[in-house]
Amino acid sequence: MHIHDFQEMMRQLFFKRDAERGIKGTYDWLVDEVQELGEELKGNNKEATEKEFADVIAWLSSLANLTGIDLEKAAINKYNFKCPKCQQSPCKCTF
Amino acid sequence: MHIHDFQEMMRQLFFKRDAERGIKGTYDWLVDEVQELGEELKGNNKEATEKEFADVIAWLSSLANLTGIDLEKAAINKYNFKCPKCQQSPCKCTF
Repeated sequence: MHIHDFQEMMRQLFFKRDAERGIKGTYDWLVDEVQELGEELKGNNKEATEKEFADVIAWLSSLANLTGIDLEKAAINKYNFKCPKCQQSPCKCTF
Repeated sequence: MHIHDFQEMMRQLFFKRDAERGIKGTYDWLVDEVQELGEELKGNNKEATEKEFADVIAWLSSLANLTGIDLEKAAINKYNFKCPKCQQSPCKCTF
């Protein structure tokens, strides 16, 4: 599935609730999901970890919907088969 | 671009450095990127905000590479055109 299509699925499913919650509340929820991912990464439960990865990209997509940003375009604009810093593939940054 | 292909691009560009840094270090970097996104969301610079969205999905993909998880599969398994809690589209959860 394209990043864009996943973001559109999130819009279809959750935009009304996301809009009621607002950008700040949705961002705070994203932060919570990232923390939950961090907790799962300390363990050994791959299925639970996969669900936390899913939640992070889901909430990131919801937040992108609220801010009018196309996550796929943003991602490809910055990361387009080369490192945005050293401009090489693979990255050869020395720091 | 498919979520899977973006993750593979991140692998091609950054896996060597990501592996050297490890899961904990890469997770910490993801957290930093989420914080930077939060700061940009307070402002009014759409281009800068897009770059922060790009960074979050990029570091999330790097982290998925390190943990052997397919971000696209994980996302679709949990969010497959219905809310994972109420099982409806659009979501009709009441909390």
